[in-house]
Amino acid sequence: MTSNPHRLSDAEIQAFIDNKTKPLGALGQIETLAAQLARFRNTLTPRIETCDLVIFAADHGIAREGVSAFPPEVTQQMVLNFLAGGAAANVFARSQNVSVHVVDAGVGGEALMMPGLISRRVGAGTQSSLHGPAMTEAQLQYALAAGAEIVAQTPADALAFGEMGIGNTASASLVAHKLSGLALDDLVGRGTGVDDAGLARKKAILAQAAARTAPLLFADQALMEYAGFEMAMMAGAMQAAAEDGRIVLVDGFIATASAAAALARAPHIRPALVFCHRSQEAGHRALLEWLGADPLLELDMRLGEGTGALLAWPLVKAASAMLCDMASFDSAGVSQG
Amino acid sequence: MTSNPHRLSDAEIQAFIDNKTKPLGALGQIETLAAQLARFRNTLTPRIETCDLVIFAADHGIAREGVSAFPPEVTQQMVLNFLAGGAAANVFARSQNVSVHVVDAGVGGEALMMPGLISRRVGAGTQSSLHGPAMTEAQLQYALAAGAEIVAQTPADALAFGEMGIGNTASASLVAHKLSGLALDDLVGRGTGVDDAGLARKKAILAQAAARTAPLLFADQALMEYAGFEMAMMAGAMQAAAEDGRIVLVDGFIATASAAAALARAPHIRPALVFCHRSQEAGHRALLEWLGADPLLELDMRLGEGTGALLAWPLVKAASAMLCDMASFDSAGVSQG
Repeated sequence: MTSNPHRLSDAEIQAFIDNKTKPLGALGQIETLAAQLARFRNTLTPRIETCDLVIFAADHGIAREGVSAFPPEVTQQMVLNFLAGGAAANVFARSQNVSVHVVDAGVGGEALMMPGLISRRVGAGTQSSLHGPAMTEAQLQYALAAGAEIVAQTPADALAFGEMGIGNTASASLVAHKLSGLALDDLVGRGTGVDDAGLARKKAILAQAAARTAPLLFADQALMEYAGFEMAMMAGAMQAAAEDGRIVLVDGFIATASAAAALARAPHIRPALVFCHRSQEAGHRALLEWLGADPLLELDMRLGEGTGALLAWPLVKAASAMLCDMASFDSAGVSQG
Repeated sequence: MTSNPHRLSDAEIQAFIDNKTKPLGALGQIETLAAQLARFRNTLTPRIETCDLVIFAADHGIAREGVSAFPPEVTQQMVLNFLAGGAAANVFARSQNVSVHVVDAGVGGEALMMPGLISRRVGAGTQSSLHGPAMTEAQLQYALAAGAEIVAQTPADALAFGEMGIGNTASASLVAHKLSGLALDDLVGRGTGVDDAGLARKKAILAQAAARTAPLLFADQALMEYAGFEMAMMAGAMQAAAEDGRIVLVDGFIATASAAAALARAPHIRPALVFCHRSQEAGHRALLEWLGADPLLELDMRLGEGTGALLAWPLVKAASAMLCDMASFDSAGVSQG
């Protein structure tokens, strides 16, 4: 945040944008995004040029109940894939000159000892939220703090957050349900690709898990009862990044559920959050609508890892460049309509 | 194009994409785009890494009939703005490391003699298509050839084409109408921002201009009767780029009308065309639907200059990177679902 004591009004920001050499409103959502950046940074020329991606990985006890199309060991296998640079998030990041940081927030089994892996293991995966809380309060607090600590060590203007964790659409549905009060059925989708029978089974198991607790929960309760370690750590990271004046690029369904938890903990961070895309995962649309968020992209994606955030990053950079570098009608000597 | 004599089947391309480390179909439209790139280049690893933007500028006789919110001198003023690097297209291009080439295809008044400006003036603006053909057949042929020549001198993997020309939504509406047979009223919008009275006047003038000729015209007739020089040159450039194996990034309404003309001249170029965004200009949706095109972005933009193409370029680069650099389940040792 700047130390400018004057708070820019929306009218000042709009007048500045309207004097750029283009028909009024002709850059559509890029103008809306630019106004958000200016408001958040409290300057007409917020320079947002660098972005890093942090991927949090963890395993989910609920995955053992058979809610995913992929076996749990894929979480660890994908961590190795991220470290080797072969996953979709890696190749998208490289094509944008974005650095990728991979965090073991609690992958199942023995701790991976790999060069480049940031280890913040809260445990070897969560407990199954079908039978009790996914994590303890101490684990939640550790996860939230670890997220903030990682942000402090990652000095980019914008931070994209991705996740990996077999079973985590199930956990995200439960967290979103307990925070929003939206019908659970509307928040449960196919994840990595369960078939019709798998989806029915997933819905039944999640309904049983949801029935353990009150219909609505406070943010920390919802995270403790139902989240994965990667989701809790991401929520802590999002809050810390926003409070430090960074732009937060919100990816798909799981990241949006984590953002909903971060917003419930700290509603003042809303101006920092850029909702990047609407994924194909069934619950994402409903959750975004509940949050009043109108994401930038809709590409029928449902991968996670931060891939949707990475594809929206150029739009954020463009919105910043428009404010910082584009000529005005006066400066360019262009006649106004 | 590669010299590979084997033509890849859609099934081979799909199998290659499906073996990447991600759930089946999880990259949505990026996968569709990747398949298009592979099919067009006839290789599973089409490397699309560089992009240049060419902006064609010209004036329109029909602008003198009062169809635009901006005065015609803005075309020349904006050319100077492009050359100074201050327009939206410039700042978006810089934020993507894309080079910008500015072509005077026929701006009104005396020829600009400016460093960096590529001069291919077909004339000092077209004739008004309200009273007769906008250009002669010789002018059309010169414009088409100049577009091809510029492409030959611009060796990027992908080419984005932008335009500037006060009055050119009017010309684009007429060209689109004569090529598609879609109702003229559905193809006429506010352009840079005419009010309700201005829109009614624009529709009346364009209906009168359209009545001069047969309901449907062949591509070259439609261009000669109604296009701007920048549109004809862009159509020539699009065809030449596609025939040379380059990816063509199609921007907004005017670029799409030019693409429709290029497609009518050379339907085989369709696989090269990436439709980048759906603009807010009224006729764009109808024209895209008629072309069977499902664009990548929808950001309520209506600026032209190639700005929508520039914002979609990172998606094309990402689709190429997915094919070229992403690990397979086998290579990464990841279990399949």
